[in-house]
Amino acid sequence: MGNEYVKAFRMQLKPGYEAEYKKRHDEIWPELAELLKNAGILEYYIFLDEETLALFAFQKLGENDRTANLASLPIMKKWWDYMAGLMEVNDDNSPKTVSCPEIFRL
Amino acid sequence: MGNEYVKAFRMQLKPGYEAEYKKRHDEIWPELAELLKNAGILEYYIFLDEETLALFAFQKLGENDRTANLASLPIMKKWWDYMAGLMEVNDDNSPKTVSCPEIFRL
Repeated sequence: MGNEYVKAFRMQLKPGYEAEYKKRHDEIWPELAELLKNAGILEYYIFLDEETLALFAFQKLGENDRTANLASLPIMKKWWDYMAGLMEVNDDNSPKTVSCPEIFRL
Repeated sequence: MGNEYVKAFRMQLKPGYEAEYKKRHDEIWPELAELLKNAGILEYYIFLDEETLALFAFQKLGENDRTANLASLPIMKKWWDYMAGLMEVNDDNSPKTVSCPEIFRL
């Protein structure tokens, strides 16, 4: 495992955008996917709670975690602008996130 | 990766039991942990959404996934009885779960 660690957070989808949110992620811009990997994201999953439309994100990050820098990159901002209509966002169009602490690991 | 696959689901904690839920999982019965591993659970994380008290579970399962059998095991039932006061449960004290489909993976 080394300095690998896990991180989870919740985002919120707006009603009616389930299919569109999935479609856009199926078609994620290759340069954005590459950028996320280069930022140190080893694994990244998003799951949808269809009852509450909560989006639950799970990440494994490497010791070279540079995800904090992603917010300053034009392509990241462009993605946020693109997704802003589908989900709850902050003033800068970044998704509203609620950090979810780890309670248990097997 | 082989036939490894991931699974996510949401459970619901009752207000006021955050610390107790974590404590009991910190002190999980070793024989139960062993049983979960033997059932084919390769990785198992639970995260808490402190705003909604949703418990988000993430699992990686191997090709020898026998988790469907867990419900019939006495120690599993004993654990569910032990945890039933802390969370939303079904009539048999198993936790109420909402399956969360995978929307994205990097």
